[in-house]
Amino acid sequence: MSLTYKAAGVDIGRADDALARIRERVRKTRRAEVIGEIGQFGGLFASPGADAVLVATTDGVGTKLELARLLDRHEVVGTDLVHHCVNDAMAMGAEPLFFLDYFATSRLEPTVFARVVGAMADACARLGVALLGGETAEMPGMYAPGTYDLAGFLVGAVSRDRLLGPDRVREGDALIGLPSTGLHTNGYSLAREILSRAAERQNATLRDLLAAPLERMTVGEALLSVHRCYLPEFRALRDAAELRAIAHLTGGGWEGNLPRALPAGLGAEIRRDSWQVPAIFTLLGDLGEVTEEERFDTWNMGIGLVVVVSASDRDKALASVEDAVDLGRVVPYTFGRRVRFV
Amino acid sequence: MSLTYKAAGVDIGRADDALARIRERVRKTRRAEVIGEIGQFGGLFASPGADAVLVATTDGVGTKLELARLLDRHEVVGTDLVHHCVNDAMAMGAEPLFFLDYFATSRLEPTVFARVVGAMADACARLGVALLGGETAEMPGMYAPGTYDLAGFLVGAVSRDRLLGPDRVREGDALIGLPSTGLHTNGYSLAREILSRAAERQNATLRDLLAAPLERMTVGEALLSVHRCYLPEFRALRDAAELRAIAHLTGGGWEGNLPRALPAGLGAEIRRDSWQVPAIFTLLGDLGEVTEEERFDTWNMGIGLVVVVSASDRDKALASVEDAVDLGRVVPYTFGRRVRFV
Repeated sequence: MSLTYKAAGVDIGRADDALARIRERVRKTRRAEVIGEIGQFGGLFASPGADAVLVATTDGVGTKLELARLLDRHEVVGTDLVHHCVNDAMAMGAEPLFFLDYFATSRLEPTVFARVVGAMADACARLGVALLGGETAEMPGMYAPGTYDLAGFLVGAVSRDRLLGPDRVREGDALIGLPSTGLHTNGYSLAREILSRAAERQNATLRDLLAAPLERMTVGEALLSVHRCYLPEFRALRDAAELRAIAHLTGGGWEGNLPRALPAGLGAEIRRDSWQVPAIFTLLGDLGEVTEEERFDTWNMGIGLVVVVSASDRDKALASVEDAVDLGRVVPYTFGRRVRFV
Repeated sequence: MSLTYKAAGVDIGRADDALARIRERVRKTRRAEVIGEIGQFGGLFASPGADAVLVATTDGVGTKLELARLLDRHEVVGTDLVHHCVNDAMAMGAEPLFFLDYFATSRLEPTVFARVVGAMADACARLGVALLGGETAEMPGMYAPGTYDLAGFLVGAVSRDRLLGPDRVREGDALIGLPSTGLHTNGYSLAREILSRAAERQNATLRDLLAAPLERMTVGEALLSVHRCYLPEFRALRDAAELRAIAHLTGGGWEGNLPRALPAGLGAEIRRDSWQVPAIFTLLGDLGEVTEEERFDTWNMGIGLVVVVSASDRDKALASVEDAVDLGRVVPYTFGRRVRFV
């Protein structure tokens, strides 16, 4: 019974095959600072100058993975992961430099891997981010058949004097919102639980509910919209206005994220009627009888990014991005919730 | 049936509790270049100068996770992850700067989380690496109860003229080996398969076999030795000799890794009798009737790092590290395997 690594479920040849399928797409992410080839023990990238600050972030895509698998839309989560990381680094004022991914599964399916990681490479290429390396882990028995998990790591840079953050924010600053494309990559466990229970009540399957129409798409399509990357809008805003801080509305929703862009003693006053909550949130919230507060504590509710600008730059900021929303302003805070909806 | 995110299995309070338990240990990893606090959208780190090259690496610990869980040794895999990443960056000549982690599970157990990520923080503090951020993902139903996965991400830096790699290597260079503490973090799926089959044959449990004595420890202890971090030895070697390239022997064993440190047209000649293969490899190999070639293609077989130095520096290199091994030399290569054992 001579055993091999392959017989134990780990096939290094399969991993090589999977990587070969995306080699050309990864190559297209190369930028001038990249040194040497992919496949070294570490990816090499020429350091920006000492006046720069490196901004590092790591993210996953959560249980959106399960929906992507169910509806055979693997590219979405690959793209999502890059966009999520880029948005997080951008929230500190940074331009993205390079990205690395971690892909883990029980038994590597080269086709699925190539769709997921290929989509990451394409997203990196579009955004000018170098895909500098990655780790592909085949762990027999650790993941259910067909499932996989992803983590992304991104490093960006910003010159020290353009670093954004709470310490720049002043009372009276304007809050500019940028619409989301849907849930982005957060709150999917709640969404799936709501849909599963509703399916059970209606004697239907989850798949039936996902195929139901919702405005000009299906529920499934709405849930698998790609996490919007705000890099172009960030650049336009940065050119038009003095940016103070940015909040990327991800896990924890509004109350979980907007205060991270505000200093102690200040809160946010948000006009609830300044944008329309997309149908997918209303559908899920109503189906699950989710309270209004819980909806805003879990989902982005239609706004994926909140940018804090000086009050005097409000109009210039709003004019610089087509779908920017005049959300509200920074107000004094004493107790209770930091984000108040009016 | 008003649903909440918590009822759907994601409890942000539990995540906050878990993080609070390790806050002080993370704080101890702070170094001068770190800007601001943990918990921003991105971790901030002052860039090294433009003459530096950033070296980025990502790793997991594979199915060693399952053994650590079975034997309640969660700290080991946390430490392993940091050591693995540090060694990989070091293989390019880099000193480590900062680390980020990804921890994913179905239902976060704050105690387990604190043991794993706390151990990462302690390893970072010992090695002078800043733990700059992390992502904790609670994904109900995606992982089996009690299981979790880890990914680590590390950025280091090396001045451009000290970058190591294949292009520096010449025929006749010396190969210096540094002993491993065991399997490190690779080949555990094969090890577990071997032990499970052996347990079945012997009408025993996996746990019984792990409790069996092996030299001065048990099989389980040998398998859960911490992945050795070679940073101190790397520094000593760098001071003593002209380093050319380094191979970190991880997934894929000798043939999968040593050639990554060699240029085309060159191979490695290794004297098999220059070190003694540790008992754990012999035990596993014999139990599984694993061929000699497959053992060296899967496991490190007792050498975790191979350092290429100029032939004239061989003796100085060997003298600089107590347990360094005079493995062999770089030789011309024409066809077949790049690593030849003599």
